[in-house]
Amino acid sequence: MPDTPDAAQRITTPPAAQRQVETLYEGKYLRMMKVGRWEYATRKKVSGIVGIVAVTDDAKLVLVEQFRAPVGRNVIELPAGLAGDIAGRENEKMETAARRELLEETGYECREMVELVEGVPSAGICDEVIQLFRASGLKKVGPCGGEPTEQITVHEVPLGEVEAWLTNQRKQGKLVDLKLYAGLYFARR
Amino acid sequence: MPDTPDAAQRITTPPAAQRQVETLYEGKYLRMMKVGRWEYATRKKVSGIVGIVAVTDDAKLVLVEQFRAPVGRNVIELPAGLAGDIAGRENEKMETAARRELLEETGYECREMVELVEGVPSAGICDEVIQLFRASGLKKVGPCGGEPTEQITVHEVPLGEVEAWLTNQRKQGKLVDLKLYAGLYFARR
Repeated sequence: MPDTPDAAQRITTPPAAQRQVETLYEGKYLRMMKVGRWEYATRKKVSGIVGIVAVTDDAKLVLVEQFRAPVGRNVIELPAGLAGDIAGRENEKMETAARRELLEETGYECREMVELVEGVPSAGICDEVIQLFRASGLKKVGPCGGEPTEQITVHEVPLGEVEAWLTNQRKQGKLVDLKLYAGLYFARR
Repeated sequence: MPDTPDAAQRITTPPAAQRQVETLYEGKYLRMMKVGRWEYATRKKVSGIVGIVAVTDDAKLVLVEQFRAPVGRNVIELPAGLAGDIAGRENEKMETAARRELLEETGYECREMVELVEGVPSAGICDEVIQLFRASGLKKVGPCGGEPTEQITVHEVPLGEVEAWLTNQRKQGKLVDLKLYAGLYFARR
């Protein structure tokens, strides 16, 4: 049974003003907030986050690898990105953001982009909410590698070999994003 | 193929001193850090984080629900918790922490606690690294509900019904932690 909410069902975090949230520190990209006794990080100028479970017609999962400064290592992840962080496109639709990020990071366009599920990655430390999409009918139309500030390597791994491949990547000192396993769950369902 | 690293293979984030990390703000529980142009949140006094995929002998997945201040909503999650945050137990083993958290949050002891995989939940905003374990041979030995400061509701959901059940929970305004779908992947593998 697909867990595909329509827009009316979409969950939004209650506005900060209603929750008596206090700003402890204002960075350039992040803020440190406090509500009650609880401290957490929030992004500035972002309306949402998308992650994409992209499977090619020959059953390969499309993954990206990039250096992640907070952990000081390369991380293997689903293609993903922020919505609403581009001036003039603050109200970008989530599906539009998912198509844009997939194209920017991997060079793939897709025929279908279907929302799978919405969820949180780590609600004890940040207020991120992520929409996962499934992309199918993939067609390579451009170069990959992300924006000029990103250095992204694209991997295409046969679905049946992803776990063994990840084990090998980890032996090389890379980390794996746990959302990737959520993606595997949906890709194999 | 199980992706079970031994201790020698465990990936650790390079020490902050080697990466020229700067502290932007020092909170009570969190710090805001900066490395290069990148800002991120880090926890103080924590040596690791564990998450537990706990399946009962009658094939039910054990889940917890608690209010998460950063998102202002109740979140359905895998049982999980911090290691090394208790005075005198800073060097607690990850497996020990997993057994302790499972018992504290759900009242279950387990015969087997096996590491499944290590990964990051959101390496763009924080430096958390999480070890996922699989718990089997569960035996109810105590009350559930977490520490006195936590208010935790335990749910036991038949594996085949988890997705439909989560859809229903979301309709009630709750959020779902995406690691739960990673847990489903491993539980059904």
